[in-house]
Amino acid sequence: MVMNRKIKIGMIGLGTVGSGVYKTLSDYKNIEIVKIGVKNINKPRNIEGLDSSILTDNPYDVVNSDADIVVELIGGTEPAFDLIKTAILNGKHIVTANKELLAKYGEELFNFAEEHNKVVLYEAAIAGGIPIIMPIKTILAGNKIHHIEAILNGTTNYILTKMDIDCASYEDVLKEAQDLGYAETDPTGDVEGFDAAYKITTLATLAFKKRIKFENVYREGITKVRAEDMKTANELGYKIKLIASADLDSEGRADVRVHPMLVSKDSTLSHIDYVKNAVSLKGHPVGHITLSGPGAGEFPTASSVVGDILSIAAELGRTDYLLPMMRCNHNENAQMIDILDTKNKYYLSLNAKNKMGVIGSLGKICEENNISVACMLQRGLKNNNTADIILITELCYEKDIRRAIEQFEQSEAISQVNSLIRVQYND
Amino acid sequence: MVMNRKIKIGMIGLGTVGSGVYKTLSDYKNIEIVKIGVKNINKPRNIEGLDSSILTDNPYDVVNSDADIVVELIGGTEPAFDLIKTAILNGKHIVTANKELLAKYGEELFNFAEEHNKVVLYEAAIAGGIPIIMPIKTILAGNKIHHIEAILNGTTNYILTKMDIDCASYEDVLKEAQDLGYAETDPTGDVEGFDAAYKITTLATLAFKKRIKFENVYREGITKVRAEDMKTANELGYKIKLIASADLDSEGRADVRVHPMLVSKDSTLSHIDYVKNAVSLKGHPVGHITLSGPGAGEFPTASSVVGDILSIAAELGRTDYLLPMMRCNHNENAQMIDILDTKNKYYLSLNAKNKMGVIGSLGKICEENNISVACMLQRGLKNNNTADIILITELCYEKDIRRAIEQFEQSEAISQVNSLIRVQYND
Repeated sequence: MVMNRKIKIGMIGLGTVGSGVYKTLSDYKNIEIVKIGVKNINKPRNIEGLDSSILTDNPYDVVNSDADIVVELIGGTEPAFDLIKTAILNGKHIVTANKELLAKYGEELFNFAEEHNKVVLYEAAIAGGIPIIMPIKTILAGNKIHHIEAILNGTTNYILTKMDIDCASYEDVLKEAQDLGYAETDPTGDVEGFDAAYKITTLATLAFKKRIKFENVYREGITKVRAEDMKTANELGYKIKLIASADLDSEGRADVRVHPMLVSKDSTLSHIDYVKNAVSLKGHPVGHITLSGPGAGEFPTASSVVGDILSIAAELGRTDYLLPMMRCNHNENAQMIDILDTKNKYYLSLNAKNKMGVIGSLGKICEENNISVACMLQRGLKNNNTADIILITELCYEKDIRRAIEQFEQSEAISQVNSLIRVQYND
Repeated sequence: MVMNRKIKIGMIGLGTVGSGVYKTLSDYKNIEIVKIGVKNINKPRNIEGLDSSILTDNPYDVVNSDADIVVELIGGTEPAFDLIKTAILNGKHIVTANKELLAKYGEELFNFAEEHNKVVLYEAAIAGGIPIIMPIKTILAGNKIHHIEAILNGTTNYILTKMDIDCASYEDVLKEAQDLGYAETDPTGDVEGFDAAYKITTLATLAFKKRIKFENVYREGITKVRAEDMKTANELGYKIKLIASADLDSEGRADVRVHPMLVSKDSTLSHIDYVKNAVSLKGHPVGHITLSGPGAGEFPTASSVVGDILSIAAELGRTDYLLPMMRCNHNENAQMIDILDTKNKYYLSLNAKNKMGVIGSLGKICEENNISVACMLQRGLKNNNTADIILITELCYEKDIRRAIEQFEQSEAISQVNSLIRVQYND
């Protein structure tokens, strides 16, 4: 690394990721951490060589310091956004891992930075240690990316992996994950898909060069995934994963979502287990590439934060100009496709009553709603005199399958609709 | 892409990759291709909008043109090296896909470029469309990489995949691959591991920041892999892949090699099939990441070439300085570990004679050579009154296993040693 002068860093947050960043940067003689904002100055911290005189419990001390780069690691929208804006006004470049802020206020943030000729880098906000943001900005810059399929949340991937391996229920595995610290006491942000939705919002905005609005991202969590569905999916050659996806069609319309999905055991994503993350991209000219690795954690996330810091530091060391590729302001809003107007394959689990003509009624409802059945599986009677029926459809419209489900629910033949899960397909 | 002036490109070579580069760059209004060196000007080419007046059959016309960047796509060491040096002397930056030149003359090349303040980028030379070189230089720059395990040659991966799926012999699949154009008439460069060895030489040099000499890379090809070994490996939970690996031990000594390897079906690399490539890295702080995708082909390789061109173009558009991270001169030679002094797990296939005490003799030879057996499999008698014995060892020294094999070959109990293949293990 060629640096002509010492680069000064201010950090806001010294939790798990912050500690990893501090420890990693301590190897660099030309980088000096000048101020760190923490909640509690007196908290004992297991960080070798930490100079407690640079700690402050007022984060504005950091953004008002003489740092060249401010690293924001506290998350959430406020006070993070105001701190970052103040830092930019004070002439600092920004490195952040704040996926929520980027998803909700990315447009405002990048425009503000651009106006003040500062960069905001955010490799650590998406997929932890996996290099994805910088590669899209640099070596993949010649590509038109039209498809992203990713596992972006370690907590839900851990839960789904354990449900699969232990044949256990969502509730049991969630509790275990909470005991192990893999899931938070209030797990909503992870299990309802918010975290993955924040990340795919920002990733798709960068990849498509059009702004995706977080509120337009379709989102379903994993709370309704049943151990039985896992088992059946396995028998049929699939795993169930929480997939964050983004597609740009030939007319430039975006379809961005997070929901559970049956993915073929032949696919790379089906082998991404526990807290690992992965991002699959399709683009021209590159074709199909997949990047996988640790999606969170002290050191993996620190790798991305430090990579961003070194990228800015290398620039500051030689010139006041800023690498154009580092910029990230895409103000053209993407035209979005409503989930109802998308085509998908579906896995459907029903309880049918034990009576004549059930298959006929099912078939009729499917036919009336333009749904072709690719695969059907009926299991023996249960105690309550109903039979499990599993359907996998060919591609059909979301609005058609939803109408069919309403009709199943009203049908005399069906006692219950258990699950509807989308199925991955290769186009 | 912010570019303040039109950037001029000269290309040497307009074959498969060159065509992909030409087609991809035609979308960029600020990039102009001013000269293209070809073997035969009059050859019909299926490239829309190609201006034949910029073609020349003298490649020195390209390096003497007014191009800002020269893209070298002819491969081989000469005349490529002289052309590139001449281009650098004429003030051009270089983008190349020439893995042989980089492996054999990388040190001289990068020093020459550095002396003349020019950069040589080479993303396309390693793993085709997979982003690996630029990520190591930028977003992973804060890492100490100590382990690389990769599938870097599409031809051999295609042959091994087909041998596995079709239970076919190496010879039969090679012929089929040649008929399909996946293997060359003289397949030596691929099947003997030269191509993969060129690539791992350059990749390890970059990742370890120490120069690896090509002649010190241990190399075994796939010509001796037998269909029977494939089958047995499958039964034991493995696939056989041609693995290019590089390790840096805690004393800074490098172990760089290319050879067939049994890889666990649980590992990501075991799922990389046909002409796909993959690179797995372990480093601190990032942990373990894997990047996979198309390792060759018109468009995937063009993606990397164009990524490099755009990276330089973005710099040239704003300043005469060059991004320090783009530089790549590592003149400190790596201290290398001889293959004999490395520890590995081994898969060993033997034919044993049908007589008393065979297992005892085997066990004695292993014990005398400090080899622990992890797994042994004996199969029923063959027509020639011998039995197949498969051994998988625990970690042991290469020199010990080689001595043991010499002793097996001299032993009364063993009629033949069929194969010795290393086995992947997780450290």
